[in-house]
Order: sequence, then C-alpha cells, then structure tokens
Amino acid sequence: MKITAQHIADLNKTQDNSYQEELNLLDTKLSRNSISLDEVIKKVADFQVAIPSWALGAGGTRFGRFSYGGEPASLEQKLDDIGLLHALTQSAGAVSLHIPWDIPQDYKTIKEVAQGHGIIFDAMNSNTFQDQPGATESYKFGSLSSHVDASREYAIQHNLDVIKIGEQLGSKSLTVWLADGANFPGQRNFQTALRHTENSLKSIYAGMPQDWKLFIEYKPYEPAFYSTVIQDWGTSFMLANACGERAYTLVDLGHHLPNTNIEQIVATLMMKGKLGGFHFNDSKYGDDDVTVGAIKPYALFLIFNELVYGMENNHNNPDLAWMIDASHNTKDPLEDLIQSLEAILIAYTQALLVDQKALRIAQQENDVVQCQEILQDAYRTDVRAILKAARLSAGGVIDPLAAYRKLLVREELIKERGTTSKATGL
Amino acid sequence: MKITAQHIADLNKTQDNSYQEELNLLDTKLSRNSISLDEVIKKVADFQVAIPSWALGAGGTRFGRFSYGGEPASLEQKLDDIGLLHALTQSAGAVSLHIPWDIPQDYKTIKEVAQGHGIIFDAMNSNTFQDQPGATESYKFGSLSSHVDASREYAIQHNLDVIKIGEQLGSKSLTVWLADGANFPGQRNFQTALRHTENSLKSIYAGMPQDWKLFIEYKPYEPAFYSTVIQDWGTSFMLANACGERAYTLVDLGHHLPNTNIEQIVATLMMKGKLGGFHFNDSKYGDDDVTVGAIKPYALFLIFNELVYGMENNHNNPDLAWMIDASHNTKDPLEDLIQSLEAILIAYTQALLVDQKALRIAQQENDVVQCQEILQDAYRTDVRAILKAARLSAGGVIDPLAAYRKLLVREELIKERGTTSKATGL
Amino acid sequence: MKITAQHIADLNKTQDNSYQEELNLLDTKLSRNSISLDEVIKKVADFQVAIPSWALGAGGTRFGRFSYGGEPASLEQKLDDIGLLHALTQSAGAVSLHIPWDIPQDYKTIKEVAQGHGIIFDAMNSNTFQDQPGATESYKFGSLSSHVDASREYAIQHNLDVIKIGEQLGSKSLTVWLADGANFPGQRNFQTALRHTENSLKSIYAGMPQDWKLFIEYKPYEPAFYSTVIQDWGTSFMLANACGERAYTLVDLGHHLPNTNIEQIVATLMMKGKLGGFHFNDSKYGDDDVTVGAIKPYALFLIFNELVYGMENNHNNPDLAWMIDASHNTKDPLEDLIQSLEAILIAYTQALLVDQKALRIAQQENDVVQCQEILQDAYRTDVRAILKAARLSAGGVIDPLAAYRKLLVREELIKERGTTSKATGL
Amino acid sequence: MKITAQHIADLNKTQDNSYQEELNLLDTKLSRNSISLDEVIKKVADFQVAIPSWALGAGGTRFGRFSYGGEPASLEQKLDDIGLLHALTQSAGAVSLHIPWDIPQDYKTIKEVAQGHGIIFDAMNSNTFQDQPGATESYKFGSLSSHVDASREYAIQHNLDVIKIGEQLGSKSLTVWLADGANFPGQRNFQTALRHTENSLKSIYAGMPQDWKLFIEYKPYEPAFYSTVIQDWGTSFMLANACGERAYTLVDLGHHLPNTNIEQIVATLMMKGKLGGFHFNDSKYGDDDVTVGAIKPYALFLIFNELVYGMENNHNNPDLAWMIDASHNTKDPLEDLIQSLEAILIAYTQALLVDQKALRIAQQENDVVQCQEILQDAYRTDVRAILKAARLSAGGVIDPLAAYRKLLVREELIKERGTTSKATGL
Repeated sequence: MKITAQHIADLNKTQDNSYQEELNLLDTKLSRNSISLDEVIKKVADFQVAIPSWALGAGGTRFGRFSYGGEPASLEQKLDDIGLLHALTQSAGAVSLHIPWDIPQDYKTIKEVAQGHGIIFDAMNSNTFQDQPGATESYKFGSLSSHVDASREYAIQHNLDVIKIGEQLGSKSLTVWLADGANFPGQRNFQTALRHTENSLKSIYAGMPQDWKLFIEYKPYEPAFYSTVIQDWGTSFMLANACGERAYTLVDLGHHLPNTNIEQIVATLMMKGKLGGFHFNDSKYGDDDVTVGAIKPYALFLIFNELVYGMENNHNNPDLAWMIDASHNTKDPLEDLIQSLEAILIAYTQALLVDQKALRIAQQENDVVQCQEILQDAYRTDVRAILKAARLSAGGVIDPLAAYRKLLVREELIKERGTTSKATGL
Repeated sequence: MKITAQHIADLNKTQDNSYQEELNLLDTKLSRNSISLDEVIKKVADFQVAIPSWALGAGGTRFGRFSYGGEPASLEQKLDDIGLLHALTQSAGAVSLHIPWDIPQDYKTIKEVAQGHGIIFDAMNSNTFQDQPGATESYKFGSLSSHVDASREYAIQHNLDVIKIGEQLGSKSLTVWLADGANFPGQRNFQTALRHTENSLKSIYAGMPQDWKLFIEYKPYEPAFYSTVIQDWGTSFMLANACGERAYTLVDLGHHLPNTNIEQIVATLMMKGKLGGFHFNDSKYGDDDVTVGAIKPYALFLIFNELVYGMENNHNNPDLAWMIDASHNTKDPLEDLIQSLEAILIAYTQALLVDQKALRIAQQENDVVQCQEILQDAYRTDVRAILKAARLSAGGVIDPLAAYRKLLVREELIKERGTTSKATGL
Repeated sequence: MKITAQHIADLNKTQDNSYQEELNLLDTKLSRNSISLDEVIKKVADFQVAIPSWALGAGGTRFGRFSYGGEPASLEQKLDDIGLLHALTQSAGAVSLHIPWDIPQDYKTIKEVAQGHGIIFDAMNSNTFQDQPGATESYKFGSLSSHVDASREYAIQHNLDVIKIGEQLGSKSLTVWLADGANFPGQRNFQTALRHTENSLKSIYAGMPQDWKLFIEYKPYEPAFYSTVIQDWGTSFMLANACGERAYTLVDLGHHLPNTNIEQIVATLMMKGKLGGFHFNDSKYGDDDVTVGAIKPYALFLIFNELVYGMENNHNNPDLAWMIDASHNTKDPLEDLIQSLEAILIAYTQALLVDQKALRIAQQENDVVQCQEILQDAYRTDVRAILKAARLSAGGVIDPLAAYRKLLVREELIKERGTTSKATGL
Repeated sequence: MKITAQHIADLNKTQDNSYQEELNLLDTKLSRNSISLDEVIKKVADFQVAIPSWALGAGGTRFGRFSYGGEPASLEQKLDDIGLLHALTQSAGAVSLHIPWDIPQDYKTIKEVAQGHGIIFDAMNSNTFQDQPGATESYKFGSLSSHVDASREYAIQHNLDVIKIGEQLGSKSLTVWLADGANFPGQRNFQTALRHTENSLKSIYAGMPQDWKLFIEYKPYEPAFYSTVIQDWGTSFMLANACGERAYTLVDLGHHLPNTNIEQIVATLMMKGKLGGFHFNDSKYGDDDVTVGAIKPYALFLIFNELVYGMENNHNNPDLAWMIDASHNTKDPLEDLIQSLEAILIAYTQALLVDQKALRIAQQENDVVQCQEILQDAYRTDVRAILKAARLSAGGVIDPLAAYRKLLVREELIKERGTTSKATGL
C-alpha cells in the first residue's frame, strides 16, 4: 500500500478547517509576546523523529505478547510502514535500525526503498543483550562489561559490525544500550565491570569513522534487577568523557528511578555539550514503554522546555537524535506512532510558546508565581491547530489518525501480508 | 482591606475580552459532542472549594520557614483573607478550621464575619499530632491508637470538643487525620494499634450529631517514618465501614506511595459510596504540598474524570467536601490559592468536556487508541475562557491574579498588619 | 536421578559438625528468654513451602531468556526435580501447579510420582493472561474483568476447569492472579471492570467444592502499565469479603509499590482472618522475582515476625499456603530454590526467637529503643545451626547446597535430559 | 556527669562473658578463610565515627517536635554528651560542628573540653538553608546558586567564615550541603543555577587552607520539592572535579531516590578517588533520618562491602570522614547514637569477614549462586562478640546500652540540666 499526494490532497479537502480560526486567535496571542506564529509553524514542520525498526511489530511483556495482523515481515516492509507514517505526518523521516534484527540482504534495494519514502538512516542500534542462534559466545553474564575476555571481544566486534552496516546505509551514529548488570549482590565486581565497560566503549569509539557519533544510554534496572553497569546519567557522562569528543549521553525517558527530575538532567547535559540523543516513551511505574505523552504530558513539556532552551543557547551541543522507543501490545503500532508524533510535537510547540524573556525577568526577580504562570500559560494553550498547519505546509494530512482510519491502512496491510506475519524484535 | 462589587466591575472593564471569541469556538466544538457550553459554565461557576485556615500563613519544612508580610494574626483576619479570595474568584466560599489553632473567641462575631464574605464553615479538623502548651497528656507515642489509655481518651475528647466548636459554627463534618505510627520496627504492635484506632473512631462517631459526617484520612508516612496506622485507602475504608454509614474515606492527593493510581482509588470509593472528601495539592516526591496542578496536571484531570463520572453515576455517594491543602513557603499564600483554584477548575472543566458517550463505545469496542484520543481531546482543550466566563457570571473577576496584583492586595495587608504578624499553624 | 536415604546419610557423615557447638550456645541464650530450642527446631522442621511447577525452568525477561541444561520437559520431571529438592531439604513437600502448563495426561501416574517424593498438591493456579493456541476467546483486553461477555465467561470456565483438575489431584485451593488492567488512561471503565471482576470471582467461588479456598492475588502493575484491576490489598480484601468466608487475600512480596510496609498489611489481614497465602521472592525495583532474602532480608524477617504473631494469636485466620514465586534467569533453578528455602527458614527461625513477652512490655512502656533492640537481637542471631539441626531431624542433609553440588545433580539431569529440554512456562 | 575508667571496669565485671565462647567459634570459622580474628578486632576497635553536634538534641518533623529532658544547652555540654558516648563505646572520638549553631565563645576552653574527652574536630558544616536573626541577605530563594549576586556572596562568605572557625579548632574539612533548588517548574534556570553553584564552590575551595578538603553533598529533594541544584552524585562529582583535587563527593544514605543502588555509587566514586565522606542514617521512604541499620541492614552491609573493598584497593581515594546524621524524635538521642554505632560496626565487621579471594573466583567463574552465598555467609554471621571484644580492648564497655541505662545517664543529665533545656538545631 502506498499513500500518494493525491490521497493527501483528497483527504485534506474533506477535513474540518475550523482550526484556521484557532490559528488566527493564536496569532494575536503570540504576537503579544513577540512570537511569530509562522516561525513556530516552520519549526514544527521541520521537526523529524526517527522510528525504530522494532516499533512496527507488536510489543510484549515477559507474560506474553498479543499479535495483530499485517505486521511487516521484512526490512523493506518496515520501511514501507514508516513510509506510510511519514506520508501522513511528514514528521517521521528517519529510521533507526537494530542489528541483528535488520541486517539488509541487499543494500541498494533498501536504500532505494528508504529514499522513495523520504526516509534517512538515523542512529544504528546494536544488541548484546540476547544470544543469537549460532553465537559462539554468550552474553548471559555480560557483554561489554563481562569478566570473560572472549564475551567482551565478541560484543565489541558486534558493535564494529553494526557500524560497518550503518556506513553502507549512510547512518552517522551508533547507540549503545548496555543491559549488562547483575541480579544479585556480589555477582559482579562493580569496579572491574565499569573498567571493562570503559575500555570496551573506547575500542568501539576508536573503530568509528571520524564523522560518527557514539550515544551511550543509561538505565537503572531491567533486565538486570540488582545493578546495571551504566545505571544513571552520571555514569554515562563519565564514560562519554572518557571516550572522547564525539561520545554523548542518550536519554531514554523511561530509564529513570521513580520521581527523577529528567528535565534537570537534560539541562545539565546540554550545558556541558554532551546530550546526544533522546528516546521518547512514557511510563507510570518503570520502563513501561507506553505511548509518549500518555501519562505525564506536563513532564514532557518541561523536558522540551529545556531542550528548546538548550538548542537556542548551547551551541556546543550537537543536533539531537530523536527517536520514539515505545511498545505496542494492545494498539495498532502505526496508530500508536501517530499518537506519539502528535504528543511530541504538541510538547515541542508548547515549549516554543514559552515567553523566554518574561521568564528570565521573573526568575531574576524571584517572582515564583509569575514563573509558574508563564510555563503554564504556554502549556495550557491548545496548539493542535499549529500542528495541523505545519503538517499541511509540509505536504501531510491535517488529521493523520482520521486519515489512517479512513484509508483503511491496517485492513490493506492485512490483505497484503496476512494476519500471521511477525516482525523481528522482542 | 475589602474588595467591593465596584472594584470588580472596574477591573473587569479593563481586562482583555478576547476570551469571548475563544468561547464561541469552544461552543461550536462542544455542540458537536452534544455538550452545552452554558451548562458547563454553570457547573464551573457553582464549584466551591474550602480554604483551610492554615493556608493563609507561610508554610515551612523541618529545615525552616521563610515568612512574608501581612500574615493574618487572628481567625477574623484569616476569614478576611478568604473573603478577598472569594470576592475575586467566587470559588472559595468555604473555610475549613483547624483546632486548636482556630478556636473562636466570639462565635457570633466570627459567624458574622464569615457571612459577610459569603463563606460557610466546611469540615472541622482536629489535631492530635502535636502537644499543646498545658496539655495533660502527650501524643508523642500516639493518640487515637495509643497503647496508653489516657492518651487515647484525651485524643477522643479533643475530637469531641472540635465537634462542639463546629456545631456552633454550622459545620457538618469532622476530618480526622491521624499522624499516629512508628519510626522503628517493633515500636508498635500493628494489631493493637489498629484495634485501638477503630474503637477510638467509633467513640468519636458516636459523639457526632446525626447530620454530621466523619472523614477518615490516610497517609503512608510522615511524620512517622516506619509505619502509619491508617496507611492507605484500604485501611481507611475498613475503618469507615466499621464506624457506620456516615463515615467516609478522605483522599489527600499527596498521601500516596510513589506511582499510586489515585484515580482508580477514587473510582472504587465512589462506586462503594464511601468517598467523603478531597484535599488538593501536588507533589513530585512525597507529601510535598506544592500547588495543585503544578507538577502533574494530567493526573489531576484523570482524577477529576473519575470524580465527574462518580458524581453523575454514583448517587449513593454523598456530595464531596473539597479543600485545598498546600503549603506556601516561597509564594504569597493568596496568590498560591488563586493559582490552586485555577488549576482545580481547569481540571474540572476539562473533565466535563469528556465525551462520555463516545468513550463508553470505544471502551466497549476495546478501541484503545480512540479511548486515549477522547480523554486527550478534552485535556488538550484550552478551557481558560470557560473559567473566565464562569467567574464573570458569578460576580468575580475575569483574571484573579492580575486583579490581585493590580489592587496591590499584599501591599495593603502589610500596611494593615505589618511585616511580622504570624498566622497560627505549622 | 533419585536421592536415597543412603545418599543423605553418607553426605551428613562428611559434613562439618561444628554447628553442634553453636546450637549449645544458642540453647543457653534462648533459655534466658524461656524459649525452647527443641520446639524451635521442631517448628522449623515442620515448615513446608510449595514449589510452583514453573520454577523448575529458566525464567526470563521481555528482553530474552538464557537457558541451561537438564530442564524438566514434563510434569513428571518437574515433580522429580521437586523430589530431589525435598529429599535434600525436607522443606519442599508440596507443588503448586499452573494450568494449562501442567495438565496431567495421566492422573494416576502423576499422583503416584508425587506421593513417591512425599509431595502434596497445594494451590492450583489458573492462567488468563495469555491466549493459548486454539483458544476461541482472547484475553488481550481482559479476562474476568473484560467488557466482553464471552471473554469473561471463557475465563470463568477456565478457572472452573482448573478446579476440576485440582480436585482429581487432591488440591484444596485455587489462586487467581488477575493480570487484567489497562495500559492507557481511559482504556477501561474502572467501575465496570471492578464490578465484572467481583461477579466473575463470585461465579468461580460458587463453583468451588465446599472444602476449597479461593486466594485472590493483587498487584499494582505489570503486565498492565497504567492500571490493574486488583491493584492492592484493599481491593483484594474487598473482593474476598464479597465472595465469602473461604475467599482470602494472597500476598506476593513483589506485588507492591515502592516502600510499601508489607508487614503491616500482613498484620491487618491476619487480624481480620483474611490472609490466605504467601508468595516468596525479593525485589529491589519492581516485581523483580529474584531469590527471596537476596535483597531485603530484614524486611523478610519483619514480615515473618507478623506471620508468627498472627499464627499464634489470630486463630480465625486459616493455615497459610506458602509458595516460592521467583524467576531464575542466571542461576540453576534448583540451586536457587535451595537458597530460597534457606532464606525463608532463616527468617522464620529468627521470628520464632523474638522475645514476645519482653516486646509487649517495651511497647506498652513506649521504650522505643528497647523494642528495636528486641527485634534486632533475634535478627542478628546466626540461626543457621538451627536449620541444620531441623533438616537433620527430618531426614534431610545438613548443607543442601553443598550436597547438591557434591552429588552433581545438575550434571546428572543434563545426562538424563540433554541440554535443550525446555520446561513449560514464561 | 562523667564516666571514669573505674566505672567502665566495674561495669565490665558484671557483664555477661559468654561472648568469649562465641569468639572462639568465630575464630575457628574465620581461620578457614584465612581471616585473622585479631586483625578484625583491631580494625573494629580503630573505627571512629564523628557525632554531629545537632544529634544531641531532639529532632523533629515539620509537624512538630517532642522534647525530652537534659538536652545540652551549650557547645560544651554537647561535647560532654559525646564524651559520655565515647567513654562507653570508644567509637565516637570525633565531633562535627554546625555553624552558626555551634560558634565557640572561647576556643581554648572548647578545645580543652574536647581533648579531655578524646574527641577531635572532624568536618565543619555550614548552613545556608536558614536565615539567621540579623542576617542582611536572605537565602529564601537560594544561596550559593542564587540569581541574586548579594545572596551568593553572602553565602560564600559564610562558608569562608566557617573554615576560619574550623581552622582554630583543628578541623581539616568543610562539608557543604546545599538546600538550594526550586519548588515549582520554571522558578529557576537550571543552567544558570548550576553555573553559579560551580563558581561559588570554586571560591570556597580557593579560600580553604592547602591541607583542607571540601565535601560536596547531594540530595534529590527536600526542602526543595521540585528540583535541587545538586540532585545526585553525578552533579556532585562534576562539581568536585571542577573545583580541584581536594574536593570530593559526600554520600548521605538518605539522599537518594527510591531504590537507588548506593553501593554501586560508592564503588564508582572510590575507583575514581572522589569519595570524601559518608553520612549514616536509614530510611524507608525519603530522607527519614532514622537510626542507621534500623530499616535496611543488608543494604548497609553491601555498602560497607564496597567501602572495605575500596579502602583496600583504591589507594587514590582519601581516608573517609564518617558521620552519623540521624534525627531522634522519639528516642533518647544518646541511646539512639549507641544503637547507631552498633549497627555501623556490625556492618563494617561483617564486610571484613567477606572471603574476598573466594568471591573473586566465583565472580570470575560467573558462579552467581556462590557469589551470593559468600556475601550472605558473612552477613548471616553474628558478629556482636567481635564488637564486644573490640570495645573491651579499647577501654570501652562490653554492652554500651546496658551500661548507659545502668549508670542512669539520662536521669543524671536531667538532674544537671533540667527538663526544658534545648539544644540548638532544627
């Protein structure tokens, strides 16, 4: 199935245009704070989020997995799914591949398929948390941090292989999420494990092309339930500094202990020029991986408030790699991704509406009430009309979810692929 | 200082009227879901929240307290402060007194002052977590749950005294927050403490007039740091059932363990007809008592979604006693209360906008994506214009915070009361 | 492989007997508190914990599963594994089956195998959190709580079927763990779901033989990440009361929000005669399912302190169903179970050593320091010699883990079953 | 009141000597692991923990404070209290002063009093979380991080003053606990606040004598309830690195988010040579400040396991400054400190018993079960006999709590000081 420009145009004709009036009201409001609505729309239209290749299949928990129909059975089909998403939203112009789940059989074809959909290859992801069939070394007791030399070497080599694959596709970065850790006190020597990790990451860093970046993820727990080698931003930051200039910390929203102030971590990392990437999802309890914005939209806004501030003020920090990293056990993954993109763009837009000048003054005067008012004013604004305008300007549809359902996309995919196809992934 | 109808009228003349256009747009939108804007405005205008007498002074932490000027030094002045708040917002038409901090010297005068401000006396609050000067028994090791008979009797009598005071003022309910618990394992026998608590509450219940209600609060920790006798809703519910028909559970938003699903508790209690009252505040870590809606506004909306559902469907549940229960260490308390009322009414209004019929259908069809859309659609709507219209219709000001600052209320209060007056309280 | 009495005798001959001297010292100490060492040893020897049939295979996380060799491939082999465990420890004389993973092909044989190992059939477990191949209804959106009548009926029928299977094996109880819930706000109507759950449980209860008990588990989250229908003990307790006298709450140590005071819940339930069963495991973050006692042994002791108190004082509460419920991704499951039994018995023994009389006096006198001393004194005592004596008296080995390794049990099992056999389960 | 050598000798004569037999058994056990009991006893006898001057008075919560009798009313009396504690335990040979609560009136006298008790002056503590009477600048909105230049300068100067006081007493280090933060999103600019903090700390560092060390504490929340400037070890570590070689991170056990793996932080900091000090207390919920070891003794042991490992292997890390930092609302503070010292020394001793060689082998072989066994074997050992022997060897009493009660210390203090004296502090 393919969505054409004609489809888009037809759909937009039938959609509700009342958002135009809302836009006019917003324009008046924003101009009072010297914010240009057009510039906001442009920024929103330009914002692109990478879709990970594993997000197109059904997710699951350790207690099981409920499948749905029409899952993409190959890398090409995954790209096709992202193509549909991008056609509707014009915000999903990148894919993030996971190796070994997505090793291309034919690079030329894959690149053409991606190009045809307007999709670029963002950060590559390695996998050293599972043993693959035929693996000669096991990660059962660790990979980059393992006490066993052979496991460590095997894991380093895997990451170097991933880089090679990425190079052929035009990717420019590698994300390392290290599941290594321990389930029981005493199981690992913390210092040895950390030292091994640092050395392994340095080897990988040394094997990257000069224009590549290394993103180091952190996570406090799961799948290891007593300790995780890279447990927090402090450890990731320390390791990134040890590796070198092009090594950065990557923040995944779900990878924090209860009540962590994530926006402060974001601000600190950007100030130090060390925030490399961002994984979007939401959670109420742990790394729940539910749809971003579905549980704590205000926290998402506060994070974007720091991201926008950093993008404007911390020129030593590189452009960020944005990616959705959620799991879709009870939803159609494409619908979930549409909702994810909407929530991300809403938070981003609201952050763009913050009256930074007034905020700075209120902060300087310790007018705490006014500081709160300024953030809440931006957040309480209904910015969905801006997203519609942005999508329209970029060639997408006004209302992607309605369009997706009207076009019977899932039904078409099931017709094409059947009800039992299964995407690689967890 | 007193705010007159003339003040209000003058202020409203000068305020921005662009919200009228927003109202028109909202009207169109709501009518699609067969929701009447006028009815929503009326409900919002009718919603009244009690102000606790201790909220008019500066709050503090165990590390200290930073005061501000013009604090009310007497119960009359506290009522005057609430009077100012109510004049501006028309949403603060009740006060909740704390004994012994607010024992009236002269009941007649106090009642006249309150009446003059349009304020009624909502739930009375007892205090058995501090020893008062001259107390003949100590609560150091417990009150209603104490192993010591005399402490228990003393605490019961105090609650009966509070009821007597409340009767003279026209209050119809008593809120018991029990700080009793233990700092160390072994310190208390759980079963004995619970049995004592049940018996004490029954004695208090038996001493209430027939038209009074008893609200039983719960809290997992603080000031006791190992265990608290009434640690959760389950315990409160069990005790309320043991006391009788007019005993209810009271939910304070800050009194939960990390990540608790509070809206589910609300739904359960309303279904069982046992939710009596509600204390508003917000928190990121524990019982932080910061301004309601300042940290997790979406959670507040989800809770109101259950409250609105319950109010419409659970006719066995009584009308709820609403109260703000926050602490204001770095803000002007009156400004903080204005922000609190705004946040509460926004969440309430958004909950009124939920398309209940569509939601029921989507739930029945397990259309998870659509369920989420329906809630988010209501939440993402900017409803502040509705609040303005509601306040205007009730005789309040369009923008209370701006009015408060324009009228130089705090400056006037400092002129009247000085900078060193200190409200009774924590 | 089978461990004979001769094996046991031979092993015990070679083991270190220095624990006898420790026993003597303990005897002197305990006699000061009028505690009889012999009675303690007898109680410890009598304590039996059920092994769930799924604990004999490798556990896993959503990120994968690392297998080991010699896994039991059939129910008979699972019973054989428990037989080995019981032969060594004399504390694992029961099995808890999970349906549909453990449907007996031949009841007579299964019963004989169990009897041969001295194993009885404890609580049966149903499964409505996964769809089985060939299932005509899906639990994707709920089972006992489902909005869909057919799913609900299907789940009820499954539970009734499990009871039937259990009856033929001599089991006398059913444990219902309900994974039902929602991943997103709005997805379910809380009140409807709770009402359905109550009705479904009542139907199951009505279908139980008169001498059966129903255990209702609770859990705050996972696999549902926004809300779970039976989220806490309060909900379980309410449902158990609604079902009837033979319905009870079951506590699983890992099923609580961060920082929950579990021992207080235990005390409350026992006081009300409503604690039915107990699942042992440990956790640092969520439902981590690591070895009981591996993370928070003092909390385990405090819980046992309440259990022992309740067993002695709450005669309205039935005998408890004890079960280990952990997951063994990086350990040999049998070794893990040996460690689990050791940790459980240590905590139980320490709780038996608490000087209850002195504690009551210290509590009554509010001598907080002394209360703490009394608990810590029991806890700090090295009671391992008592466990050795208890095992020896019951016909087990002094040191089960050493014996297990000396007998090369795992190596034997791999020889018998190979390295690729796989137990049914998660 | 003063406890003499004769008191001690008399007391020890009357105390139970059965611990000698236990020692003999321990000796046999330890020798199997090539651990020398005598060396362990010596290390335990040498271990000294500083007592903060504020720990001698009653603690409190924001809900109130329950006093007890005989509180020390002056710095001399505080030193006398520590003197009593040290005489009994021989483990409390240091005091940590808090300025402005403990500004000496007469340095010579104070030093003599301390010397007379065998007490040295450990780390000094500044206070920029409260406004003192007569203060010309306020810390209401921050101190070292304040947006207001004058507040910042004032806070820096205060720290420099504290150093001056410390120099005259022989102290060699300054602990900075910074309460600065925000209660509301938007209130502070994270980057500005962090930059100010770094600069302020550098100024203080520059003002320290060459042989002084700076300890930088971190804490996620309280008294600020939205964000704290130095929220975690990563931030403290970053700031310590920015200051210089003699700046270190200080870990307070209660200053972490729920479920934090503190022992891993300790290991990381020691490996980097940046762990400077340690504050002991325990907690179940937040910064509860209850007696160390009263809630999570196994976690305390695991932390000591890393501390012992670090002290033996990380020679780049300085000697640590140990301090008790708890609050005693319902206990006699001196009794609480006796319990604290006991818990600390038990954990330390158990950590000394870990068979490090065997552990390393088991870790290298990924024998997870054995790793757990080794730690648990040390932890499950009853080491109280070792503490008794250590105290006796150092001139203290065998059983300090029993001695304290037998000597009627509190009663004597009340006789001397009355029931209404009040120590400076929170």
